[in-house]
Amino acid sequence: MTVTQNAPAVRTHPGPTDDQAVLIVHGKDRTGIVAAISAVLGKHDANIVQLDQYSDNPHGGAFFQRTVFALDHLKARLPQVEADLKATLAEGFELEYTLRDMSAPKRVAIFASKDDHCLLDLLWRHRRGELPVNVAMVISNHADTADEVRFFGVPFFHVPSAGPDKSAAEEQHLRLLQGNVDFIVLARYMQILSAGFIERLGVPIINIHHSFLPAFIGAGPYAKAKQRGVKLIGATAHYVTEALDEGPIIEQDVIRVSHADTVADLQRRGADVERAVLSRAVRWHCEDRVVRHDNHTIVFAG
Amino acid sequence: MTVTQNAPAVRTHPGPTDDQAVLIVHGKDRTGIVAAISAVLGKHDANIVQLDQYSDNPHGGAFFQRTVFALDHLKARLPQVEADLKATLAEGFELEYTLRDMSAPKRVAIFASKDDHCLLDLLWRHRRGELPVNVAMVISNHADTADEVRFFGVPFFHVPSAGPDKSAAEEQHLRLLQGNVDFIVLARYMQILSAGFIERLGVPIINIHHSFLPAFIGAGPYAKAKQRGVKLIGATAHYVTEALDEGPIIEQDVIRVSHADTVADLQRRGADVERAVLSRAVRWHCEDRVVRHDNHTIVFAG
Amino acid sequence: MTVTQNAPAVRTHPGPTDDQAVLIVHGKDRTGIVAAISAVLGKHDANIVQLDQYSDNPHGGAFFQRTVFALDHLKARLPQVEADLKATLAEGFELEYTLRDMSAPKRVAIFASKDDHCLLDLLWRHRRGELPVNVAMVISNHADTADEVRFFGVPFFHVPSAGPDKSAAEEQHLRLLQGNVDFIVLARYMQILSAGFIERLGVPIINIHHSFLPAFIGAGPYAKAKQRGVKLIGATAHYVTEALDEGPIIEQDVIRVSHADTVADLQRRGADVERAVLSRAVRWHCEDRVVRHDNHTIVFAG
Amino acid sequence: MTVTQNAPAVRTHPGPTDDQAVLIVHGKDRTGIVAAISAVLGKHDANIVQLDQYSDNPHGGAFFQRTVFALDHLKARLPQVEADLKATLAEGFELEYTLRDMSAPKRVAIFASKDDHCLLDLLWRHRRGELPVNVAMVISNHADTADEVRFFGVPFFHVPSAGPDKSAAEEQHLRLLQGNVDFIVLARYMQILSAGFIERLGVPIINIHHSFLPAFIGAGPYAKAKQRGVKLIGATAHYVTEALDEGPIIEQDVIRVSHADTVADLQRRGADVERAVLSRAVRWHCEDRVVRHDNHTIVFAG
Repeated sequence: MTVTQNAPAVRTHPGPTDDQAVLIVHGKDRTGIVAAISAVLGKHDANIVQLDQYSDNPHGGAFFQRTVFALDHLKARLPQVEADLKATLAEGFELEYTLRDMSAPKRVAIFASKDDHCLLDLLWRHRRGELPVNVAMVISNHADTADEVRFFGVPFFHVPSAGPDKSAAEEQHLRLLQGNVDFIVLARYMQILSAGFIERLGVPIINIHHSFLPAFIGAGPYAKAKQRGVKLIGATAHYVTEALDEGPIIEQDVIRVSHADTVADLQRRGADVERAVLSRAVRWHCEDRVVRHDNHTIVFAG
Repeated sequence: MTVTQNAPAVRTHPGPTDDQAVLIVHGKDRTGIVAAISAVLGKHDANIVQLDQYSDNPHGGAFFQRTVFALDHLKARLPQVEADLKATLAEGFELEYTLRDMSAPKRVAIFASKDDHCLLDLLWRHRRGELPVNVAMVISNHADTADEVRFFGVPFFHVPSAGPDKSAAEEQHLRLLQGNVDFIVLARYMQILSAGFIERLGVPIINIHHSFLPAFIGAGPYAKAKQRGVKLIGATAHYVTEALDEGPIIEQDVIRVSHADTVADLQRRGADVERAVLSRAVRWHCEDRVVRHDNHTIVFAG
Repeated sequence: MTVTQNAPAVRTHPGPTDDQAVLIVHGKDRTGIVAAISAVLGKHDANIVQLDQYSDNPHGGAFFQRTVFALDHLKARLPQVEADLKATLAEGFELEYTLRDMSAPKRVAIFASKDDHCLLDLLWRHRRGELPVNVAMVISNHADTADEVRFFGVPFFHVPSAGPDKSAAEEQHLRLLQGNVDFIVLARYMQILSAGFIERLGVPIINIHHSFLPAFIGAGPYAKAKQRGVKLIGATAHYVTEALDEGPIIEQDVIRVSHADTVADLQRRGADVERAVLSRAVRWHCEDRVVRHDNHTIVFAG
Repeated sequence: MTVTQNAPAVRTHPGPTDDQAVLIVHGKDRTGIVAAISAVLGKHDANIVQLDQYSDNPHGGAFFQRTVFALDHLKARLPQVEADLKATLAEGFELEYTLRDMSAPKRVAIFASKDDHCLLDLLWRHRRGELPVNVAMVISNHADTADEVRFFGVPFFHVPSAGPDKSAAEEQHLRLLQGNVDFIVLARYMQILSAGFIERLGVPIINIHHSFLPAFIGAGPYAKAKQRGVKLIGATAHYVTEALDEGPIIEQDVIRVSHADTVADLQRRGADVERAVLSRAVRWHCEDRVVRHDNHTIVFAG
């Protein structure tokens, strides 16, 4: 057996994030963007800790930059950095940016139904310090996981779904969510969100779903995968858009299966991939590593 | 998002195991073993559901066979099947066998310390029906996980370790375990078991530990792995023998890491591999898929 | 650097296959099949080296068994073994079987076009002794790879494709192939085979094609995958049926890609997966490890 | 089968690298480095195509930056860019840099012995345009691969090894290599290079060797791995230093094996991992993606 005495407490965040900020810049590529940004940061004595930059086409394509920088007394000085950045990027660049103090974690609501594998994996990882996020609440259309969620110290709200008309439930959701969360995770939430709800909510929504090679459309995908004899079972985490299951992909993975796996085995193995893929996607979103562009993502996975 | 209405409850055991038994036969290879065994099963109208056979050398090597068979009214008829098998295998074969009614799950005690990732993963998989096992108890030298374990409906016993002399703690362990469990899982249990304890206990013990390419001996392996710049982090599940960390390997896996991962990141990713590898090893042990031979294993992973 | 002096020549076949035969039995499950088969083998003093058995449903499902056995003076005695097997399996079982002397490798024709990665990988593995197969010929609609193929000591036939009417080319193919090959591998062969050709040819055909999560239909799949930002690129090897790309899957795999990969990078990485997946599928087919059933396969991958 | 008409020729380099240069900067971290570098590039109207930056400790650690930039008429203007960079980095920074015109591939000599899997994989990939490198020569202590190497249009030199005194062979190596190559790849070269040779040669040397969990020291590692029943077989590519097999790791990977694999199977599977790992390491080295620091590497794998 492994014996490690006096092992230090695991702190899995990538180092102290106090006095660190993350800046995402995204837009039309042009000569001089990196220099302009780093000049602003240099002027404020900010030390660049990590910088990832990518252009999808050096001749007039799109520009993406993620910069983590350290700055003493960040909270006091960040507004001035931001004002300078804004002024600089306004000078002839066609760029958007987001700037965030990394000591202030994003706030998330997790939506779940009966299946608990993705939900619990996120709550465990959060409790272990693996996810730099503030879990504001769990919302479920089933009451089953209430005790378990509250055991983690997280508020649980039961909002039953009542037939095809989801407007009443969605009103309840909006009352709970608006102003309280920065993004939503659908952790095997088995209800469709209306386009109107997505729009009114106005924050990013991450979903996880199973994936197969080839694809199996409709109900009972695992039974179809069994019938077709696929050798891999996968999962895809993506941002939710109005086009069902068609939003920008954040992360994907697969595992190997065989003819000896029953439909239930495929579901069990699929569940393992789902929770692994979803937790990576959530982590990367929390750390501002994912930039959406057209219908795909740039992931500075680090 | 994915919508599957009226999805059936997941039952992840490989089909109904009522009226099914698993037979492991292991020993010196000889012509006619498969025929002799299947003749006995055929005589009792047992239907062979899955049969895996392996010889490590067709010319006088070792023979391994795992057979799952279905037999109506199994409980009533198994003793007679066993008697016939015993008589048959005694006729000139040098073979050992185990025969087990699959409807009676093995009983396990899980040993843990402060780190909870492997422990919780096992408890959660058990609750989902993924592990055909009876979790008799959790024993820990720390009290931290007591509430959580009991939340799963599993007895928790706190047996503190008191300095280098472990004999008092081991006596307590033996009182709790003897007669009550069929195997032990060390789920990141950070204490060494004495050779005497292992012998008196007399049941298989499964351990999980981290693994690296190359190996890093001694304290702080993750810090050493970081310093050496390894690109993979792994874990190994094995049976415990008197030779520390040298017992027969059941399962191994790795994940990819990079220079950007901190020591804490490596520990976090290592924890993911550990729980995945341990849960597979435990599952295979529960299903009698692992046969020990010399210092290695034959795994009919299915 | 690694230094191994006097390393023995690598012989990658799974041990000496002289005097070994492989038996595949496949059909309706019934009690007593394993016993009946092993009794026949036992009667002839055949030693079972490896036996894999699988039932897709213990209650009236399909039965699959692959058995490798050793028998001195196999060539002389195999006809009598076969006669006994045939008589036994005719007694009330609804089973098909194939029985093959493993010292006589199957004969293959490889079809290729301009892309050489799959073709060369197969030829090279064959030369190393990794593929127990007799490469009878390479047929290509382009002359580009002629020298290289012949360098491997393999006959090369150039059969150009001439527009939409493939009947003349297919007649040439049939003249070259009929009686000379046991199966065909399409190693990135960029022409459609007509249903009539497949039927007249009458031997199994293995194809490799790229696979994506989600699927991208039509021309330019890699460009579409890039646009969609997929994080995995895969390949699928399958038997060819009249339904284009819809035949039973033998093997699949994927590799991870990122936003930084260009379309050309995706093609390059896809090529790596393709050759790996195809070579595994071909190897398993050569070793009679793949059983077709309905539209899927049972792979006793060993 | 897959049919793609008029598929464009694969060009796997990451886009046109004419008029592109790659700059590596490495040394003591300090505020303002990124700004200083990008200001120089901006002054010359160079457009940054890709920038990866990493600090191993924001408080006084080491700084690493890889920058790819595009500049019209690069060949004419690069000397002036370099002069400006040199002057800038001399102002109070403790940094080293390398600057390279990406249209001028590095020159490599590949060393091989009898085993051809790594050698051929590199030659194939080079011919396909996957490796931006100039293969100047192959040197082998065996003549076996001469024809095959020359078939690729690459000069082949046979330098036999004659017993324990390697000085004569090493003199021959140096005469062939000095001035002609920028790095060396040991593609399963089964001779030890002396420390004196490594020093006199003065260019990076990349080696590939097998890796196991746990490690097996000495001769016959695959036989030992089989005996120990490992479930994974791996390979490690690293830079050669005077400490045998202990140099900075560039890349590692593993594949899964089972008890059913013979020693020969393990060697075959190991060979697949070796060639995959080595080709990635060589590619990354050719693209200046690997920075050595202490005894490890920073790999901007892209």
